[in-house]
Amino acid sequence: MSGKIKIGIIGATGYTGAELIRILLDHAQADIQYLTTTSAAGQDIGEIYPFLRPRFSQKLTKYELSAAQKLDAVFICLPHGRSMELAPELVNAGVKVIDLGADFRFRDLAIYEKTYQKHTAPEINAQAVYGLPEYNRAQIKKAKLIANPGCYVTAATLALKPIVENLAFVEGSLIIDAKSGVSGAGRALRQDTHFLEVYTNFSTYKLGVHRHQPEIEQNIGASVVFAPHLLPVNRGILATIYVKLHEKTNTDNILSILQKQYQNEPFVRIVEKAPTLKDVVGSNYCLISPTIVGDGSQLILVSALDNLVKGASGQAVQNMNIMFGLPETTGLERLALNP
Amino acid sequence: MSGKIKIGIIGATGYTGAELIRILLDHAQADIQYLTTTSAAGQDIGEIYPFLRPRFSQKLTKYELSAAQKLDAVFICLPHGRSMELAPELVNAGVKVIDLGADFRFRDLAIYEKTYQKHTAPEINAQAVYGLPEYNRAQIKKAKLIANPGCYVTAATLALKPIVENLAFVEGSLIIDAKSGVSGAGRALRQDTHFLEVYTNFSTYKLGVHRHQPEIEQNIGASVVFAPHLLPVNRGILATIYVKLHEKTNTDNILSILQKQYQNEPFVRIVEKAPTLKDVVGSNYCLISPTIVGDGSQLILVSALDNLVKGASGQAVQNMNIMFGLPETTGLERLALNP
Amino acid sequence: MSGKIKIGIIGATGYTGAELIRILLDHAQADIQYLTTTSAAGQDIGEIYPFLRPRFSQKLTKYELSAAQKLDAVFICLPHGRSMELAPELVNAGVKVIDLGADFRFRDLAIYEKTYQKHTAPEINAQAVYGLPEYNRAQIKKAKLIANPGCYVTAATLALKPIVENLAFVEGSLIIDAKSGVSGAGRALRQDTHFLEVYTNFSTYKLGVHRHQPEIEQNIGASVVFAPHLLPVNRGILATIYVKLHEKTNTDNILSILQKQYQNEPFVRIVEKAPTLKDVVGSNYCLISPTIVGDGSQLILVSALDNLVKGASGQAVQNMNIMFGLPETTGLERLALNP
Amino acid sequence: MSGKIKIGIIGATGYTGAELIRILLDHAQADIQYLTTTSAAGQDIGEIYPFLRPRFSQKLTKYELSAAQKLDAVFICLPHGRSMELAPELVNAGVKVIDLGADFRFRDLAIYEKTYQKHTAPEINAQAVYGLPEYNRAQIKKAKLIANPGCYVTAATLALKPIVENLAFVEGSLIIDAKSGVSGAGRALRQDTHFLEVYTNFSTYKLGVHRHQPEIEQNIGASVVFAPHLLPVNRGILATIYVKLHEKTNTDNILSILQKQYQNEPFVRIVEKAPTLKDVVGSNYCLISPTIVGDGSQLILVSALDNLVKGASGQAVQNMNIMFGLPETTGLERLALNP
Repeated sequence: MSGKIKIGIIGATGYTGAELIRILLDHAQADIQYLTTTSAAGQDIGEIYPFLRPRFSQKLTKYELSAAQKLDAVFICLPHGRSMELAPELVNAGVKVIDLGADFRFRDLAIYEKTYQKHTAPEINAQAVYGLPEYNRAQIKKAKLIANPGCYVTAATLALKPIVENLAFVEGSLIIDAKSGVSGAGRALRQDTHFLEVYTNFSTYKLGVHRHQPEIEQNIGASVVFAPHLLPVNRGILATIYVKLHEKTNTDNILSILQKQYQNEPFVRIVEKAPTLKDVVGSNYCLISPTIVGDGSQLILVSALDNLVKGASGQAVQNMNIMFGLPETTGLERLALNP
Repeated sequence: MSGKIKIGIIGATGYTGAELIRILLDHAQADIQYLTTTSAAGQDIGEIYPFLRPRFSQKLTKYELSAAQKLDAVFICLPHGRSMELAPELVNAGVKVIDLGADFRFRDLAIYEKTYQKHTAPEINAQAVYGLPEYNRAQIKKAKLIANPGCYVTAATLALKPIVENLAFVEGSLIIDAKSGVSGAGRALRQDTHFLEVYTNFSTYKLGVHRHQPEIEQNIGASVVFAPHLLPVNRGILATIYVKLHEKTNTDNILSILQKQYQNEPFVRIVEKAPTLKDVVGSNYCLISPTIVGDGSQLILVSALDNLVKGASGQAVQNMNIMFGLPETTGLERLALNP
Repeated sequence: MSGKIKIGIIGATGYTGAELIRILLDHAQADIQYLTTTSAAGQDIGEIYPFLRPRFSQKLTKYELSAAQKLDAVFICLPHGRSMELAPELVNAGVKVIDLGADFRFRDLAIYEKTYQKHTAPEINAQAVYGLPEYNRAQIKKAKLIANPGCYVTAATLALKPIVENLAFVEGSLIIDAKSGVSGAGRALRQDTHFLEVYTNFSTYKLGVHRHQPEIEQNIGASVVFAPHLLPVNRGILATIYVKLHEKTNTDNILSILQKQYQNEPFVRIVEKAPTLKDVVGSNYCLISPTIVGDGSQLILVSALDNLVKGASGQAVQNMNIMFGLPETTGLERLALNP
Repeated sequence: MSGKIKIGIIGATGYTGAELIRILLDHAQADIQYLTTTSAAGQDIGEIYPFLRPRFSQKLTKYELSAAQKLDAVFICLPHGRSMELAPELVNAGVKVIDLGADFRFRDLAIYEKTYQKHTAPEINAQAVYGLPEYNRAQIKKAKLIANPGCYVTAATLALKPIVENLAFVEGSLIIDAKSGVSGAGRALRQDTHFLEVYTNFSTYKLGVHRHQPEIEQNIGASVVFAPHLLPVNRGILATIYVKLHEKTNTDNILSILQKQYQNEPFVRIVEKAPTLKDVVGSNYCLISPTIVGDGSQLILVSALDNLVKGASGQAVQNMNIMFGLPETTGLERLALNP
């Protein structure tokens, strides 16, 4: 294509919207032209996010198809249920759509409907491609509509999928003990994200009933126990994943399997020393390390990523790069902010 | 006994020492008479811990048996290896000893020696009582030497022991994913407790090789997978514990088992809503909640306590109260500091 | 009096209400009988504050005079404007009232009305005693209605008042750069107390227009520049206060003035080393230290307290103790939680 | 010049060294060739800073002039006293030197020697240019040796200098109440940067005796009261600055003065709403806002920057860009990480 990609963000005032802007401002081919909101029309995005002001100013507006259809790519950052209203008309208008919500993540709509709500756009869902580049790159290239994976889901899938596909494990033994920073819960006001509910605190939530569990199970083809926890930090997911193998093995063998799987991937790194949250926060990298403990048949995987980058907006831009034939790492190579 | 309990703290400058002072200042029968140090002799404890100054001032001194043997009770807050040097002479002098370290926690010295180092006081070890009041109250009452349990160990044992003793579970399926605040790592300077290594961070450490694992296994009589994590907070442990049961059950059944076990315990509470760290930090309570997930055979237990209180100094005072025939809750009823 | 003090808390679900309960549970003469709410009637306070559950359970109810007038003492924890509706009828019913809000803090109602709103109970305001024990103990003893001071105000007044009363200072040179933890902003949901607005952040607010400024000016009888800041912590105020003196002096002279003023006060400590937030958080102590810098005429005072304790609920209980002829420190001696 | 700038970092294992690497990896003209250390020779920088590993690996070595003199530019990140040993030989070898320490910041060596230590390289000091681009751009362009300003100094100078140069103020009234994140204190182990000394805490330090005070005074040509504080966060400085003016004015007038001064500056923004720490952390921007309070003669300036970026490594790269004739913003435009 000639010229920059004309980009819109539907629901730009949430954290994934602001993160898209932050990333795209350093993306040489991106031209952010259109930002929508339901609640803050008329305001400048820089009033809501002052960190943007030194470089970026743009008015928020209410979504209108007539404006959106002139764009090349649209990122939808809306609660589930809303994307399936907008995506069909955008796709039909020839706009490439990357949906950061859950509406198009499930191949089996019965699971979607059991987990979320009635699905009103099954036809467009059938065209959607699940945007996990490490496994679906070829289809993403040709996709009109991307279902960007969930944050926990990305962390868990990248670590677990090569294991369940290459090793025999005890059925029912897959346990994902996942810990996330607060930005995963969004910017809307809720008692449980009040500063004083979170600071110096740590808690579980939705044990065994979190909506990301069936998405993980779809991706790896096996049932899991999923236990999410809320960390008193702004960003990042660290998942500690337990797998009981049928046969004894050692850490080096697992390292080999993972390294082989991801050796050419730009944003997955297999490391020997377990990653920490700060190794990845602010970056699009997912770091994974395996450890065999006990008698040799118990595997522990540690997987870390930034929920707003590789877990959401960074992966969305990675998908955009693939869809538009750009180098996949464009705009996405910055490292974590540390210390 | 007539008069207050004359108390010494050996190794008073660490966090468990300061926490003992904080607790004992509100204990009507306690008279803190003797504080020792190896590195800060001559200083006042209030110079090291200014929060004590409004109510407490006392010089630190080097340990001498001649002084210590005049006391009624001595708390030892030293690294492992050091307690077994001091405890025998104190016990022989008739002083009641509560050791907050690991030296006397193991009935089977082979496990101690494999986990820590050579044991030099096997005879006195044979007299030691493991200071978990919920299970050893009668022996604690008569004990001369208490081995105060580890912090992670208390959180894990209180939750798991009634389960493994009352329900059939899949061997090898016990997984303890435990998260601790930084005070568990002590006050000594280490790169990994530098503010900038911990703040906004979260990490695993010693996966499968932490020294509390054999202590938990001793307590519950079964092998476990133990994965400790470092939380970016000052205090508190929250352990998420996974048990695969042989038969399906429901949450209410597990609640009943736990409630029956602890119905008369002053410091263990079984709760329906999973506890968070802030429910317990600053208090001597351990809160435990069970949830059955998935098909009905997967149990998740959440256990929370303050590592410096019920996980160390509070439990030590609880043991002292039992040893001296005082009401067990004396000085220990304060609630968590919240928000 | 015979028997315990029968206590009610009007507006018990806010942080000052919960803090009153936390303190009063360790107060031997307190009997909490009545907790009111406008929004959560029928709920147990332990559902809102799970940290209370191990020791305390009580249903919240809507305020009714018929119930409240049977009490000995009532703490009002309501937004300004509401106390002046309730206080008159309670005082007239013979209930001792301690109002933690601003409605009765001003002797000159014109200042109140300029700062807050129209005052509807000027007669009862005339009977109110400003509850700063260090300066008004005699009147508090006989008071029917206490206006408990503001949190910033207590920190600033205790440090500044002895200085302005004993030394000549440059008019207009009094600057209070005050920093507060988030609990000062209350529990209601606001964008600026969302975890992600505060964590890793630090900000000024209401520069020169904060409502505590005229209250400080009333107390010390001089105008001040007041600049509040929001610290990314749960509790505590640290105020750095600048005074330009007419004559050169030294730190020892200032120490003497302050020590003389507060030598018999149970909850004010003059210290040589500047206090930090953690020296006081969780306690009812206010720590103050002076430093003379530069050419000898510039004084810097550092004043620290816990905004919810000496800055609100602890001071309120201190006032109650004085009103009921109890030892002033009853229930209030606990030290800061540290680390 | 042809080709990339060959760059060395002397003392690369500290936070300013790691931050230089983070910035320079996104700088199209930078080629990091040489990293030195005194303590960790032979290690890879990625072992010390795992966040670098996904993109960067380089062995640390001991400093040798023979290696360093082949470089185009050297950043010195050493404690004061060490730079003046190395800088002369590097400058004489034709290497452009940017010193992030204090050794060459003072025109009057008597002040340096009073504040720091004896100066051993007065001749080279005479050639050094103070690297504050907003005021010394022309000299920086021709400089062989840059003295990069202190972090607090940059925040204070950028806000105060236009005021003291354009308005009459009361002598002795300039007060800088500055708050810094912990990274300003460096990576070396110290009790006061232990996680548990800082977390939930806030404190003053070096009131009136901090070494940045004379540097600020040199820059603005007036004496100041300087009070540094330690914030419980990783990065960022927010300075609240008080100026008593001789004549009454209003906020708009001050805004005009500041905007006029900095209208063409790429990294200084004058804003109406006071900046917060998170508006700048991770970026090279300094945000400044003025407020006139009280009767109209009291000015409060709020100045915020990231101590490791505009306060150290970012400003150092900005200086490098100017010295090498590159666009001044190269590699430095990234925005703050938020939330």
